[in-house]
Order: sequence, then structure tokens, then C-alpha cells
Amino acid sequence: MKVYGRNVLKEILNTNTPVKMIYFSNSGDKELKKLIEIAKIKKLPHTIANKKILTKLCNYEKHQGVVIDIGEFKYKDEYYIENLNNPFIVILDQLQDPHNFGAIIRTAVAAGADAIVIPKNNSVQVTPAVIKVSVGTIFRINVIQVVNLARFIEQIKKYGIWIYGADMHGKKYYEIDLKKPIAVVLGNEGAGIRRLIKEKCDDFISIPMKNHVESLNVSVSAGIILFEVMRQNESIDS
Amino acid sequence: MKVYGRNVLKEILNTNTPVKMIYFSNSGDKELKKLIEIAKIKKLPHTIANKKILTKLCNYEKHQGVVIDIGEFKYKDEYYIENLNNPFIVILDQLQDPHNFGAIIRTAVAAGADAIVIPKNNSVQVTPAVIKVSVGTIFRINVIQVVNLARFIEQIKKYGIWIYGADMHGKKYYEIDLKKPIAVVLGNEGAGIRRLIKEKCDDFISIPMKNHVESLNVSVSAGIILFEVMRQNESIDS
Repeated sequence: MKVYGRNVLKEILNTNTPVKMIYFSNSGDKELKKLIEIAKIKKLPHTIANKKILTKLCNYEKHQGVVIDIGEFKYKDEYYIENLNNPFIVILDQLQDPHNFGAIIRTAVAAGADAIVIPKNNSVQVTPAVIKVSVGTIFRINVIQVVNLARFIEQIKKYGIWIYGADMHGKKYYEIDLKKPIAVVLGNEGAGIRRLIKEKCDDFISIPMKNHVESLNVSVSAGIILFEVMRQNESIDS
Repeated sequence: MKVYGRNVLKEILNTNTPVKMIYFSNSGDKELKKLIEIAKIKKLPHTIANKKILTKLCNYEKHQGVVIDIGEFKYKDEYYIENLNNPFIVILDQLQDPHNFGAIIRTAVAAGADAIVIPKNNSVQVTPAVIKVSVGTIFRINVIQVVNLARFIEQIKKYGIWIYGADMHGKKYYEIDLKKPIAVVLGNEGAGIRRLIKEKCDDFISIPMKNHVESLNVSVSAGIILFEVMRQNESIDS
């Protein structure tokens, strides 16, 4: 997979994510030269090429002079969740929009979530656009792809994880005790969480709204709920 | 201005926003027929046309069989803020992305904000795409366009409004008392709030983050902060 953008490269460098090849533009400014220098020092495979070649490689013009071949994106094995201490999981039930997915990844990393789980079918997957929107933060979190989301939820319940679905008919997000091993389920942009998945939820979280608004953009809802989880758990630490 | 989409039309109908003409597709399903029926009952100017004509009218394919000519979009006069009771204002300093703007409008309406303020220059403006992303909620809030944002902030300070800038070096959002007449300033996607505008802020709000993440998507930050304002003010009511 060929990803692009300077912030994406910076996160790849910061997290020591393996790369197959880094393509730099030959018409670079100071920042680009510094990034090339770091690639040299880290002894990463890299090459200098014409800007237009980079555009062809990633099929996108605004690559900022950086294209990175990371090989196949590595989804994490789901069983690793079993060994987490106080897990905080984000489950996306058939999300479709790459911008929403990328923004939720960035938010989940910032809120300290351990993993993001997506179904293998009928869902947005990890693409270069998603990685770009995540500003490269995706390399700081585990993305798990599961074949059967309902079965997966059944499984992690056995690890003592509580499943909270985001739904307008739930309890107010700031009146629920979220200081426990938790998975937050966010649904599809239009249809919300599927009935089958709702049946697996232990409880529902809602965001009270004014002016007859029925829902928020899913990445905004994610922000409000995931940061509430972080906030409540911070108050334990302090 | 020609806007499009069924949810946008529903909000136009719900809020009695004036229309110049509603164009419906002639190949409609049940929902579309119901919308035509409502337009008839409300005696709104409307016409039935070929799907392709609708596409030409709004320059967009996914119009869902509905295009609405609302004439020129009406920005609100800034002086109306003076007479608000316990004002809650959202100021966007040179935001660029229509998706972010639309999502923030939806969020601001849901959080009960009174107005959204944007500068006239170097800022995303209200466009059909913005209105679509707002899911039509824009018709439930006042959008104010100002020539000089710094001067505007000076002015509303005189009305007793506190100005809070969203900035990573501010105080934690849940440790600030937001139960007062307030304006929240959100900055440009890349550069944040301009120095000139920062100097006008009374204080700064930040969202503490983990894993070295330095910022969130601006619409996500807006969600977390605006809903904190709502949450604190709800606790007064109850």
C-alpha cells in the first residue's frame, strides 16, 4: 500500500513502522530535506524522484513530496485483546466514509483507546486516504478486522469487557459509569448500529441534543463519547 | 443558491425557510411523493423535472430527487447578538474545509449555540455542499459573516461575552467554568487561531490528549468543547 503526506511519514518514523520504500520529491524544501536526512540516518530504503512520478505512484496530487510504500497494511489479530489490562476498544459497525474512519482513528488514539475493530465486509477498510486523514496516527493503534462482528463481541464479553452502543435512545453519556473495561460501538452513518449488533450491547450511550437535531456526524459523536471515557478514567488516576 | 437533498428540504419545510423554487425529480419513490404533497399543501413554488435536469441545476448527482432554489443565502446581522439572553456563540477563524464547516454547524445547532461567526475573507463560506453536510440544520441557526473578526470580538466583549480560544496550551475543557455568556473560537485546520485573534481571547480551552497526538480534526474538537458548554449549562437548569 502506498501512503503519502509528511505527517504520515513522521508518524511512520516515530513509531518505527516498517517501510518497503520511501519516495521523496526532488523539488523539496527544508522540511523535506530534513525528512530525507532522517531516512538516511535510520537506514530506511528511499529514493528521490520527480514530483509527477510520486503523483502516479499514489494516484494523488497533494502528496507533499512524500510517498511511502508500506507493503500490505497489517491488521492485528483479535486475540491480543484478551491480554489487555483495562481494555478500551472502539468498534465501528459498517462505517462507510473514509474521512469519518480517519478522523475516528485520530480521535481514538488521542483518547487512549487500545484498538479499533471493523468488520471485513460492508465496511470502509484501511486505505491510503484513511491513513492520510488519520494524520498517520493509525500507526499508534491496533486495527482489527473481524469476519463476524457479533461473534467477536460475544468473545470479548468473556474477557469482562462491557459493550456500549452509541444510540439516540440510550442513557446520557455523562451519567453512565465508564470506568471499566469497555468497548464503544458506533454505527453506520445512515442506519446506525445493526439490530443484530445492538442485541449484543450491554447498554446504550446517547448524546442529548437541542433544536430537534437527531444525530451528529459519527466522528463528532465518537469524539464526545471516547473523550468521556478518557475523562472518567483520568479521574481514577488522579 | 441551489441546495439539494431530502433532509435539507425537510429542514427548510420544518423551519419555514423561504424558497424560490423546489425542483422534484419525476422518478420518485414514496418519500419523494410525500415531500411533493407537503410542498403543495404549504403552497410553495415547485415543479417536476427530469433527474438529469436536477443534476444540471445543482451540478451534483446525488441530489436525491430534490433541488431547492433558496435565492441568496441570508447571513444574519451581527448586532442581533447584543440582545441575546445568555449568548453562546461559535467563532470560526479562517476555517477552509466545507465538510468541517457543515459538521460544526450541525454540532453547534445540536449543542444549542445561538450563532456561528465566520470572517468574510480567507474562510469557507456557506455553499450548497456545506448546507448538505449540515443536514439542513443550518436553517436553525444564525450564521454571521464579519469583515473584521478582531473588531467583532472586541464588540461582543462589551456585551459581557467571554471569549475562549481552543488551543492546545489552554486549560482542560472540563476544568473551566463555561456557565456564562460565551464565545468559543476555533481555528484554521492547519494553523489554528491567528495570533491577532488569540490576543483578543480571554482564556484558552484545550483537550488533553494521549499518545503524542497534538490535535484532533477541528469538527471533533468543536464537538467536545461545544457539548461541554451545553453540559455545564444543563446542570444549571436541572
